[in-house]
Amino acid sequence: MENGNSVASTVGKAIRCKAAVCRSSGEPLVIEEIEVAPPKAGEVRIKIICTSLCHSDVTFWKLKEPHGIFPRIFGHEAVGVVESVGENVKEVKEGDMVVPVFLANCEECRDCKSKKSNICSKFPFGVVPGLPRDGTSRFRDSKGEVLHCFLSVSSFAEYTVVDITHVAKLDDRRISAEKACLLSCGVSTGVGAAWKVADVEAGSTVVIFGLGAVGLAVAEGARIRGASKIIGVDLNPQKFEIGKKFGVTDFVNPKDCLDRPITEVISEMTDGGADYCFECIGLASLMNDAFNCCRSGWGKTVILGVEMHGSPLSINCLEILRGKCITGALFGGTKAKTDIPLFAKMYLDKELHLDDFITHEVSFHDINKAFDLLIQEKSIRCIIWMDR
Amino acid sequence: MENGNSVASTVGKAIRCKAAVCRSSGEPLVIEEIEVAPPKAGEVRIKIICTSLCHSDVTFWKLKEPHGIFPRIFGHEAVGVVESVGENVKEVKEGDMVVPVFLANCEECRDCKSKKSNICSKFPFGVVPGLPRDGTSRFRDSKGEVLHCFLSVSSFAEYTVVDITHVAKLDDRRISAEKACLLSCGVSTGVGAAWKVADVEAGSTVVIFGLGAVGLAVAEGARIRGASKIIGVDLNPQKFEIGKKFGVTDFVNPKDCLDRPITEVISEMTDGGADYCFECIGLASLMNDAFNCCRSGWGKTVILGVEMHGSPLSINCLEILRGKCITGALFGGTKAKTDIPLFAKMYLDKELHLDDFITHEVSFHDINKAFDLLIQEKSIRCIIWMDR
Repeated sequence: MENGNSVASTVGKAIRCKAAVCRSSGEPLVIEEIEVAPPKAGEVRIKIICTSLCHSDVTFWKLKEPHGIFPRIFGHEAVGVVESVGENVKEVKEGDMVVPVFLANCEECRDCKSKKSNICSKFPFGVVPGLPRDGTSRFRDSKGEVLHCFLSVSSFAEYTVVDITHVAKLDDRRISAEKACLLSCGVSTGVGAAWKVADVEAGSTVVIFGLGAVGLAVAEGARIRGASKIIGVDLNPQKFEIGKKFGVTDFVNPKDCLDRPITEVISEMTDGGADYCFECIGLASLMNDAFNCCRSGWGKTVILGVEMHGSPLSINCLEILRGKCITGALFGGTKAKTDIPLFAKMYLDKELHLDDFITHEVSFHDINKAFDLLIQEKSIRCIIWMDR
Repeated sequence: MENGNSVASTVGKAIRCKAAVCRSSGEPLVIEEIEVAPPKAGEVRIKIICTSLCHSDVTFWKLKEPHGIFPRIFGHEAVGVVESVGENVKEVKEGDMVVPVFLANCEECRDCKSKKSNICSKFPFGVVPGLPRDGTSRFRDSKGEVLHCFLSVSSFAEYTVVDITHVAKLDDRRISAEKACLLSCGVSTGVGAAWKVADVEAGSTVVIFGLGAVGLAVAEGARIRGASKIIGVDLNPQKFEIGKKFGVTDFVNPKDCLDRPITEVISEMTDGGADYCFECIGLASLMNDAFNCCRSGWGKTVILGVEMHGSPLSINCLEILRGKCITGALFGGTKAKTDIPLFAKMYLDKELHLDDFITHEVSFHDINKAFDLLIQEKSIRCIIWMDR
């Protein structure tokens, strides 16, 4: 610990530690000394072990005011150890290994209790700058100014405070921190989408638009289910090599399709259309392509990308009458508290591949390198170690 | 029979009989004497007992050339008796009671064999003017001019020729002709959509946009499944009364919503959004309303209406990420050959209500009255009796 206190002595007190603070849109993060208040009722203070950078961090980091909110502590994919808990928190205790998640899972509301939903209705998802219960932040900078939260997690700090509904506990500590970290967002999103949203079956054909961490995790999920053809679509030809590690069997680079529409190319490769298409980029036009690449009768399009320009998705009404379906999910339909431990177990049982998602590792003070690597499409996941 | 022959004597010969011919867009049909050629291989010649008018007939009747194709024999909701069969037809024989259906069901292709699809891929659906196998018509007028087919059925004639893949056999002849006729299109579409596409469960909330025959049949399907709230949305206030007969529990007339958006009204009535929304009109804007009336987490929108203006369906990309789903179906996901006999059995077992769909009955020579009644929204289904 940076401040030299023992874990026990910090309980109930503010902790001074380091955080990578974003002071304004698109500016490099600055490692600052901050103060993290103790957790309030229903909250957990977590010592972050490592965190990784997801495209959503970059999207919001780039956002200009008034949509962008600064100063802010980004980061929402991480793993850590519980330092202390607020009132009424029984589920975890000091020393527990936990994965914070941007999507709540209260386990009490109608949605959390239903097998069909992972969209907690008690603590609805929103990109708000504070914690879910009271909308405030536990972070202050050295001048006492509030530092805003991000996606209820804010993991680019040595310590963070997260609501207990946003925490998944990992009882089996055999999983290494950096692998557990991957389950916090991107990988769970992709694997969950293949299993829980699409429910990919053996022998089916799958098309994945965008082979970032989410898209590759969709491939991994589809591979495990025994899909017979997994087509990756990406503008970056290098993605095919890494894709193969996760079961991608075929690769289409739209740049190489010359004057043929991608839908025609895919239709030919899948004998009339794919069983499942996944959009993992966030472009309305690609969502439409994905929909058109699905076969009549039962073709299912799963939207995972957050549309970058706020454009609506526009689809042909007659095509949808042919039995096609379009759906979408946050966090791949995954329920944090039950599914993350399950995914961890599958990793330990050597069913789920996680190792190859990690292409880079940096120290916390090099966090801006992680941004460069992701923006330049050099990394899939770059692990940022807090203690190194 | 109009030509005075016995059934046996017509086999292999052309039959002269009456048909209601549409000579040009939007013009009243004219009862003419026509000639119906014998069925070719894979086809069945059917003596129509009764037929009824569906909105799709009206839509295509109104279509101007070149999209509208004339002269044409409309009609696709009917019941009849097999007069003779072409080569290779083993499934039905002379005298069998059959329901012709606009959607093929070859029972051999991947789609027909799958539980997930009702969109036959061997004989794909299309609004073509000829029969599926060779694209030609079996109808000629008294001058020898070809009369085009409609939706592979053309039931506004005393005799028609239909491909065997478009025929469902009813072995249990206890069902009266006019009830069987309803199962040929609209009612099966609605009931099928509730059961096979949406899979409505007990206790769920359902919203139906448009209480025509299809919408009322959706209500009937949802009622049988035990939906707790079935909200009908229609501009015609009289639809609530008939809706109640099919399980509609609540009614919303958009005209009465004053300045409140319909989505807000429905959201309030359903505690945050409906489990299932059905669009049974064919307007892209209503499809979007239906989507927005569905709850986050698992809300499913089912499109059954054929968009009238060819407009695309436009939906908010962020809303779909909240676990919503939008899908559609032709013929309500129903497979003609297996599901129509099942629906008939449910009617005979007094589980499925059919009687109240029939609001009017006319003689064949009064067929234009059926058009007036439907266009003026006075009828749900008007049975047109060929022999009366």
